[in-house]
Amino acid sequence: MKLYDSKPAPNPRRVRIFLAEKGLEVPTVQVDIGRRENRSAPLLAMNPLGGLPFLELDDGSVIAESVAICRYFEELHPDPPLFGSGALERASVEMWQRRMELELFRDVTGCFQNTHEFFKGRIEQVPAYGELCKRSALARLEWLDQELSGHPFVAGPRYTIADITALVAIDFGRVVGIRIAPEQKQLARWHEAVSARPSAKA
Amino acid sequence: MKLYDSKPAPNPRRVRIFLAEKGLEVPTVQVDIGRRENRSAPLLAMNPLGGLPFLELDDGSVIAESVAICRYFEELHPDPPLFGSGALERASVEMWQRRMELELFRDVTGCFQNTHEFFKGRIEQVPAYGELCKRSALARLEWLDQELSGHPFVAGPRYTIADITALVAIDFGRVVGIRIAPEQKQLARWHEAVSARPSAKA
Repeated sequence: MKLYDSKPAPNPRRVRIFLAEKGLEVPTVQVDIGRRENRSAPLLAMNPLGGLPFLELDDGSVIAESVAICRYFEELHPDPPLFGSGALERASVEMWQRRMELELFRDVTGCFQNTHEFFKGRIEQVPAYGELCKRSALARLEWLDQELSGHPFVAGPRYTIADITALVAIDFGRVVGIRIAPEQKQLARWHEAVSARPSAKA
Repeated sequence: MKLYDSKPAPNPRRVRIFLAEKGLEVPTVQVDIGRRENRSAPLLAMNPLGGLPFLELDDGSVIAESVAICRYFEELHPDPPLFGSGALERASVEMWQRRMELELFRDVTGCFQNTHEFFKGRIEQVPAYGELCKRSALARLEWLDQELSGHPFVAGPRYTIADITALVAIDFGRVVGIRIAPEQKQLARWHEAVSARPSAKA
């Protein structure tokens, strides 16, 4: 099996952190997004939408989408459970993972894609939308700060994939000025704790 | 348990179709989005982000996010498996569900939110982004048409939650002129098949 990875991009980092939390090592192939290697013919033949990361299995099957790759490893190596355990916790982790993805991660990457120099000429940018994403992401950080006063981790009492999505979104937010505000004490406490885990360096 | 529902909105329809496929009936409360009932104090106290649907359990816990609600019922009632069965199929269904959500559903709703009269004055609209979403969604339909030549349903040989997300996205797309083109025969074949299932009326 091979993980097609890109060190600087946020989605591949989600999978690397997940694997580190599981104590798993998977051979990786570094793909240079700057040179559009992810859109080269051999890679598009494996993953037609051109995103990263994706996982190539030994029989040639391909699993794309960061959370789908994580789900695959969760099924094969259930401990520690990073998607929750039991119906209610699994649903709750899914809810929080989706909130972090759709309300935070997507706004951070939407801001980056629509305002950052890196994407100029690569995609059609709508800067006004990027700015809206930024305001929206900053508002979500305020909300998340309040939520974290009720639970140590994003989805509740233990570390899950929702923490991974939130951490990667917030760290990547720095490139577009989306940062935790000094008064967001709960968020800062959480960020310090999840960043101190060895997996955060993955 | 109570499902807070809204008949005209796309996300609640995803859960209603899912429940119908499982043969489950859950008491529902209709919430009038036009009158912003979803943003009234009692509902925000249950679901602070104001979205629909959400599920209130008998102990007062709340599960928001359509896919998280579906996951809850999948865990309690695994048959028929709508999230797949076994590691590889579960990962593959997750991949396809995410593709349908992030590449299609989000663009359809992004187009609606940023261009449609309904949202004027309700949210800050960026029409240029809405138009970009429309072009992107139409391109994804072309791609999906090709993919469906290889498998009867979105994620492979059987009906899954990925079909539900795609069906709801495509049906909702009509309000903003995102429609299956006459030459997209595979997509039309799939759409006819999934629309003929009794669950499509849910």
